Amino acid sequence: MGDVSGERCAVVTGGAGAIGGVLVRALLDQGASVTVVDNLSSGRLENVGTANAHPKFRFVQADLRDAASIDASFRGATEIWHLAANPDIRRGTAEPKLDLEFGTIATFHVLEAARRHEVGWIGFSSSSVVYGLPTVFPTPEEYGPLLPQSQYGAHKLASEAMISAFCHSYGMTGTIYRFANIIGPGMTHGVIYDFLKKLERDPTRLEVLGDGRQAKSYLWTADCVSGLLLGREKARRPIDVFNLGTETQVSAGEIARKVVAACGGSARIEMTGGERGWIGDIPRQLLSTQKIRALGWTPRLGSEQAVDQAIATLQAELGPH
Amino acid sequence: MGDVSGERCAVVTGGAGAIGGVLVRALLDQGASVTVVDNLSSGRLENVGTANAHPKFRFVQADLRDAASIDASFRGATEIWHLAANPDIRRGTAEPKLDLEFGTIATFHVLEAARRHEVGWIGFSSSSVVYGLPTVFPTPEEYGPLLPQSQYGAHKLASEAMISAFCHSYGMTGTIYRFANIIGPGMTHGVIYDFLKKLERDPTRLEVLGDGRQAKSYLWTADCVSGLLLGREKARRPIDVFNLGTETQVSAGEIARKVVAACGGSARIEMTGGERGWIGDIPRQLLSTQKIRALGWTPRLGSEQAVDQAIATLQAELGPH
Repeated sequence: MGDVSGERCAVVTGGAGAIGGVLVRALLDQGASVTVVDNLSSGRLENVGTANAHPKFRFVQADLRDAASIDASFRGATEIWHLAANPDIRRGTAEPKLDLEFGTIATFHVLEAARRHEVGWIGFSSSSVVYGLPTVFPTPEEYGPLLPQSQYGAHKLASEAMISAFCHSYGMTGTIYRFANIIGPGMTHGVIYDFLKKLERDPTRLEVLGDGRQAKSYLWTADCVSGLLLGREKARRPIDVFNLGTETQVSAGEIARKVVAACGGSARIEMTGGERGWIGDIPRQLLSTQKIRALGWTPRLGSEQAVDQAIATLQAELGPH
Repeated sequence: MGDVSGERCAVVTGGAGAIGGVLVRALLDQGASVTVVDNLSSGRLENVGTANAHPKFRFVQADLRDAASIDASFRGATEIWHLAANPDIRRGTAEPKLDLEFGTIATFHVLEAARRHEVGWIGFSSSSVVYGLPTVFPTPEEYGPLLPQSQYGAHKLASEAMISAFCHSYGMTGTIYRFANIIGPGMTHGVIYDFLKKLERDPTRLEVLGDGRQAKSYLWTADCVSGLLLGREKARRPIDVFNLGTETQVSAGEIARKVVAACGGSARIEMTGGERGWIGDIPRQLLSTQKIRALGWTPRLGSEQAVDQAIATLQAELGPH
């Protein structure tokens, strides 16, 4: 079917996640109808906020591992935003089947549904971790070799590869976005969330995995979504790849100090030591964003501002402790 | 268990294929015991030749999609050569599930078996097609972005990515070999095989898909296997990637002329036109092999010699027509 009526019909997998919710509202603002497909394993419907009452919004609780259960949701779609994934990199290391199933196999089912229903475009939330341990900073999109460290990264790259093959073989257009650390309201994982949770359990000390010098770039969710929408608008056939991040970094140690300060400043920070926080961790991450900037994108917040804002937001969400 | 006794115990998936058979004999020559795991869908036990009677040779007919059926074969293994795949790129375009199952899922099961049985090393037959349509020739291992054109290429890249994650996470060592077109005795697919089969059906004309100018490099099976063994010998932790090919090319048109000449020279060559032979075809392929050459590898035959020898060999195998 596809774009017969000229109306935009978006499917957002993982649309009940922290990034998905912001994207859903932005798509509705642009006049699109939106179907969220989410299994609510880590997503929460409150992330879509006011969108839930919008006449053009539809929510389908379904598991992407089950191809039959998602098929009908893709009928009539003109664009797919495939954001769903296992959000917990460390859990994937303990149970590698998780990322195979919620990564590669889920993406395959989404692509097959897209092909069946002749959906013209697919956007995919990939990750900086596909670069493995890069030796070039900021890392550009054409960096190689791509040797991911984690199961999560492996199945992000596998999904990219399948999207590329589908776009080249079946006339679809794809846009791959490789995310830095995206932070904002509604987060349920990540370093800031972990630190706040640890302090909630024990306000006297904060354990930091690694030596605290792991330095990464952080991007505010709303800035990420403006990049997603621009990439969609400027999509080139058959496929395009964009890094999305800020070109500044914040270290894990700095985030720990900021979180401790925000919580009253009395906790002792204890580093466990070692270059990496955990197996599969990438100690240094900084993406070149020249390509998407050249199309006119500029993030409103730098890494440090995004971190500050995320700490304040999350602290409010988690409530007093 | 792993390498407790100091004895080399190799598992070769797809060991009944045209490359596998040569590798199996070479491993036995090096004193290793060899277990071939093959579903015989395209492989044939005669490809291992005399190895079949060797006391250290064992053959297990099993399907890599079924994790339980292959597990026991990996017990006590010290090295895994994972060569099995769907060999037909074009069939994968028509049925994308084939490469998901015989590519990514099969590789995942092999990796999980390797992890369970603490196998120290895995070698993987990847392909030049992971480079998609490269813009640099000869293409080096660090080329990016990796945007495969075919399902086959997508799942080769997906398998590479999973191997990388397993090696980084669980202490295994991996060697990824990206193959040019490997040709030699026992082939059951590929351009030379296709041309000979077409002439068998109709000796008056030979249809060439595309404009005949698709130019690729060809590597003789025995040269490929000497590269595989050298890569194993020099394996670096946690993972290494090597291109394997010759740095000369032969065009599809030249191969057509050679095949027609070998068959008596009377067939008319008809090009179907277009830059590519078929959806997912890569019109130009030339790999940089500097990295493996620096370790001391030199192929005995160039592309043209390999093609000539393959035509003669295959003609003899297919019998008079």
